[in-house]
Amino acid sequence: MKLQIAIDTLSGAEALAMVDKIHDVIDIVEVGTPLILREGMAPVRALKQKYPALCVLADTKIVDGGDLESADACEAGADIVTVLALADDETIRLVVEAAHRYGRKVMADLINVRDIPTRSKELMALGLDYICVHTAFDVQKLGKTPLDDLTELVSAAPPEMAAVAGGIKLETLGAYRRLNPAIVIAGSSLTNAPDIRLAVVEMRAALSR
Amino acid sequence: MKLQIAIDTLSGAEALAMVDKIHDVIDIVEVGTPLILREGMAPVRALKQKYPALCVLADTKIVDGGDLESADACEAGADIVTVLALADDETIRLVVEAAHRYGRKVMADLINVRDIPTRSKELMALGLDYICVHTAFDVQKLGKTPLDDLTELVSAAPPEMAAVAGGIKLETLGAYRRLNPAIVIAGSSLTNAPDIRLAVVEMRAALSR
Repeated sequence: MKLQIAIDTLSGAEALAMVDKIHDVIDIVEVGTPLILREGMAPVRALKQKYPALCVLADTKIVDGGDLESADACEAGADIVTVLALADDETIRLVVEAAHRYGRKVMADLINVRDIPTRSKELMALGLDYICVHTAFDVQKLGKTPLDDLTELVSAAPPEMAAVAGGIKLETLGAYRRLNPAIVIAGSSLTNAPDIRLAVVEMRAALSR
Repeated sequence: MKLQIAIDTLSGAEALAMVDKIHDVIDIVEVGTPLILREGMAPVRALKQKYPALCVLADTKIVDGGDLESADACEAGADIVTVLALADDETIRLVVEAAHRYGRKVMADLINVRDIPTRSKELMALGLDYICVHTAFDVQKLGKTPLDDLTELVSAAPPEMAAVAGGIKLETLGAYRRLNPAIVIAGSSLTNAPDIRLAVVEMRAALSR
């Protein structure tokens, strides 16, 4: 299981300073959508320039213009780009085609998808590398977690394609770990920790336990 | 009827140079999603700095983090921000709330929504300012146009809230114009025209005819 840290609320410069502390203990660094909307691909480019071996995910959440937007993210150095599972199949096909042309990977984000098993099977047929269940930040406060969604996902797709995101912290990690997803994504529980390096090391240790 | 030009495939500098030619004859300039993914809010900020009176739409296509992402776009100067109609209602509510706090407007993008009349009524209840039917670029080549979708939209929502996008050009404008949407959005038919100022003036004249 790999640990992905989602960096959402900082500037590119702050994100880089944060990654300086954890680049050797984290599996995947996600440049989050809010950061991309503010600064575009600059943070992705800066991270790959400083840490060429670091796996960087650009959370582009593509929903149209699949070829152009996927290729742009790959040109900037993204190792993984994301596409909305809600997008048209043709868009998803184009995102995958472009990323694979660059030797990169694509994660589909199931945010707001109702029928997770059916869509997951379609996504597998479309050549996705990872499928991520994702409880939106805006609905986490309504008490929803991605645990049931992950259970549905791994009933339809192999765990080695599965990723999970949405308010996960060290205290709730066990239930997710039992479902053995390839990637566990944590955001504020890591980025807001008093000692981020310690928080990453602890969560990664808990994943491999 | 207002004419909105979608600028998608250029750099921020090229977009600015294009707007220099048309800022006094266009109603709304859209900083397109691909440009935002590349350069973030910088092109929005640059356009508003140079042309404070210009109406600038940031095609953010928000699907989560509604408060943060909407507020960020407003801080950058966007007069209109966009949210996906596929997003959770709570996200849409937060996008609207943030934008209205800044005195700005929100357009919902119906891309990939199946039941347009039902979702449009829900969007009206959520306080949206504009609702846009949008045939994805990636599916236009399959022969789809947004004309039937616009007909469905104006059956459920007042035309003064309606916007339409998806491969519209001068030759096909008449059918859309008859449905009287508030905003007609054109992209490559304007941005690829040999004389962009002439193309904008002609299309705007055709809209008000």
